[in-house]
Amino acid sequence: MKKMTPILNQVLDDIVPRESDRKKIETLSQELKKKLVIECEKAGIVATIGIEGSIAKDTWLLDDPDIDIFIRLPLTITRENFDEDILTIAKKATKGYRQVQRYAEHPYLEAFINDVRVNIVPCYQVDIGNWKSATDRTPYHSKYVRKHLNQGLKNQVRLLKKFFKGINVYGAEIKTGGFSGYLCELLILHYNSFIKTLEAFSNYKKPVIIDLKNFYKDKKVDSFLLFSDPLIVIDPVDKNRNVASALTSEKLYELVGAARAFLREPNKDFFFPKKIKIFSMDTLLSKFENRGSSILFIQLNNIRAVPDVLWGQLFKTQKSLIKLLKNNDFKILQNAIWTDEKSLTVFIIEVETHILPKIKQHFGPPLEFNEQSIAFLLKYVKNTSVVSGPFIQNNRWTILLNRIYQNAISLLEEKLLTDNKNIRFPKLISEAIKENFRILIDNEIATLYQNNSDFAAFITSFLIGKPS
Amino acid sequence: MKKMTPILNQVLDDIVPRESDRKKIETLSQELKKKLVIECEKAGIVATIGIEGSIAKDTWLLDDPDIDIFIRLPLTITRENFDEDILTIAKKATKGYRQVQRYAEHPYLEAFINDVRVNIVPCYQVDIGNWKSATDRTPYHSKYVRKHLNQGLKNQVRLLKKFFKGINVYGAEIKTGGFSGYLCELLILHYNSFIKTLEAFSNYKKPVIIDLKNFYKDKKVDSFLLFSDPLIVIDPVDKNRNVASALTSEKLYELVGAARAFLREPNKDFFFPKKIKIFSMDTLLSKFENRGSSILFIQLNNIRAVPDVLWGQLFKTQKSLIKLLKNNDFKILQNAIWTDEKSLTVFIIEVETHILPKIKQHFGPPLEFNEQSIAFLLKYVKNTSVVSGPFIQNNRWTILLNRIYQNAISLLEEKLLTDNKNIRFPKLISEAIKENFRILIDNEIATLYQNNSDFAAFITSFLIGKPS
Repeated sequence: MKKMTPILNQVLDDIVPRESDRKKIETLSQELKKKLVIECEKAGIVATIGIEGSIAKDTWLLDDPDIDIFIRLPLTITRENFDEDILTIAKKATKGYRQVQRYAEHPYLEAFINDVRVNIVPCYQVDIGNWKSATDRTPYHSKYVRKHLNQGLKNQVRLLKKFFKGINVYGAEIKTGGFSGYLCELLILHYNSFIKTLEAFSNYKKPVIIDLKNFYKDKKVDSFLLFSDPLIVIDPVDKNRNVASALTSEKLYELVGAARAFLREPNKDFFFPKKIKIFSMDTLLSKFENRGSSILFIQLNNIRAVPDVLWGQLFKTQKSLIKLLKNNDFKILQNAIWTDEKSLTVFIIEVETHILPKIKQHFGPPLEFNEQSIAFLLKYVKNTSVVSGPFIQNNRWTILLNRIYQNAISLLEEKLLTDNKNIRFPKLISEAIKENFRILIDNEIATLYQNNSDFAAFITSFLIGKPS
Repeated sequence: MKKMTPILNQVLDDIVPRESDRKKIETLSQELKKKLVIECEKAGIVATIGIEGSIAKDTWLLDDPDIDIFIRLPLTITRENFDEDILTIAKKATKGYRQVQRYAEHPYLEAFINDVRVNIVPCYQVDIGNWKSATDRTPYHSKYVRKHLNQGLKNQVRLLKKFFKGINVYGAEIKTGGFSGYLCELLILHYNSFIKTLEAFSNYKKPVIIDLKNFYKDKKVDSFLLFSDPLIVIDPVDKNRNVASALTSEKLYELVGAARAFLREPNKDFFFPKKIKIFSMDTLLSKFENRGSSILFIQLNNIRAVPDVLWGQLFKTQKSLIKLLKNNDFKILQNAIWTDEKSLTVFIIEVETHILPKIKQHFGPPLEFNEQSIAFLLKYVKNTSVVSGPFIQNNRWTILLNRIYQNAISLLEEKLLTDNKNIRFPKLISEAIKENFRILIDNEIATLYQNNSDFAAFITSFLIGKPS
């Protein structure tokens, strides 16, 4: 632990906002708030405007000062107005700046003011527990954290957030499936320090239940039954909600691995990962050449959807593709998805080989099952794809038969092109496939690699074997 | 069942000995018996000479009139004399005819007189239950069958034996692992007819227990515990012996399949299978070409042993070879052994492909196991065969690494040539390997095929997919 303290101090030096930074953000927030108050009044909407999120809780990172402004609306506002009027108001208040319309459970506006990202989000002003929309809890979250998180712990939250960002497990959106900022704060409230949090995760054993308000004091079992997730952090403002429900076990285990590695050998790189050095074209080609596997790239264009919807459909599609390949005996080694969330999406699936042997073994029923045996024999005795048999092996009817799909590319092409029962894709993906798709293998990806440095960085990291 | 009776009658016409056949065999048997009596007297051995086996029980097949002559010796004869003196006596009695020294539990003599095979076998004259050697039961078997098998049932035994021979499940020696003649007789005594026996086996469900003398009347469980074999036929002359103990489940299930097929569509071919038409060289080569698998032939020479010992060691070796290939990810489709029991033995193993992809996935421990995870990481982090990783997949540490053996032939050659812990061969095989071995693949077997018609017939049948 000798090296630990200086390292953490160095990191804090880089991430804790100074007085001048705070002032700048404070000014910007208050200005925006005023503008929103004015716009609401103009529109005749009675709302409470509040600064929420990491700015309100003083847990923001110097290089990432997101401003979250919540417009708390009375229940008299209908859900339609909630969705549309507020967007109009937000747009007016940030006029002249870059604006992106975003969508989580409902639409909200993202604006960029002097390089600072601002999220303007509507919610209902409700009593605790009477939630009407997904964002209604946020002001209560801010309140809870402000009340319990003392000055010393705020920087521990910052360390944890920065570490999680560095190892790429930060963010509860579907794309990442990681830890939200609020979850980081609750973890520090529970474990009391950055290091103790890492120590806890390095010894992770499923399931971990954190229940700060002791909702389930004498009945841990109930909360365990209620949430089957690998990490359960009961929301202090809503005992029925697991704050960590978006966390995938992949991200959890990546944290476990990283926590162990960091505790064994502390290093600033965990917080500030070195940018990956993209393989040169020569290196790329020789990597494909030497690797001996087959890497399949399924390229789609123009899938238009907000990120959470897009990523939801991408993950579903990935699952279907992998199932299809596995069912046809292809051995999956690694897989990943890369997308610019606009015009280019690439599913990357590495298989041992994309060309399987011509022949395979197919086991029928055990001979004890008379009727099934007869059915099997009737089915295969005159089947032209049968090369050998039916004979008896391991007490079962067995045949050798020619594979229908020897080549993964033919398999994918056929199944992507035809509507069929065996594989179904979500709507957006299905539409994109109909519009255009390409299947590339290994170095056929070279042009794409050359033209897109983000993609190139991703592929480089994929080939090294620590996909992010 | 319309076709059944005429078919069985036709078969019986061909297999039941006529009066003239009986007379011929009877004469031959008596002459031999006399000669043996004389030779025993000469040697000063007091023995009872008796005709046993199918001749004694009148269950022999016309085309297969084996004469079994047993020399029942007093217990005063030592085991050494039993083994050696009796062989000498048997040789003298069959002087001038072809003689083969055989070995089951102890040596015996096989002689061929006018194309009739004669087995001259020593045993001890003991009371029931006081067995001193494995053959001591035989005279009691003959006695039991003679007493219980009525005239009508004898031909049912003949049908069953002939059927078993036709489908290649007849013979209790290790090579076949099938049904002995005595077992056929007991089955008919239990089921009462050939057809009823087939019906019983076509509905086979493990385990079947046949206990003619009701040794285990009220305690079936005991006999089940005593014998874990799939077919249990309690020997009427020895309640501790399962007459079907040599039966392999392969042969049992081959019978189940054949019984069903025969009952569905009775046909003389089951009793008199058509001789396999050996593939021409052109056909053979095109079969290898089109099949798309890899068939490996491991050829050994000069293994000298009596058949039971030889086959025991061959089966053990086959198991080791298959385990070796499986452990290295080769997918076994079919396998077989062919041997002339003298100068040529060939292990035949068909794999999906004999060349595997260069790369494979290797899973380490789940991340929950901290210490094992550290050990895995330490082992592989700097291992040069690792192509990618360690990364986390399915909550486990995972790496992609280069296979040590991509080629089944290199694997086999290396493991056959070097003494090592991973694969051990029985003594005779180990010696034969040291002397000489070859590994051939697919059409490299052509010369052997051309020079040996037995081998060619076997390979033809293997390729068709009903290995015998």
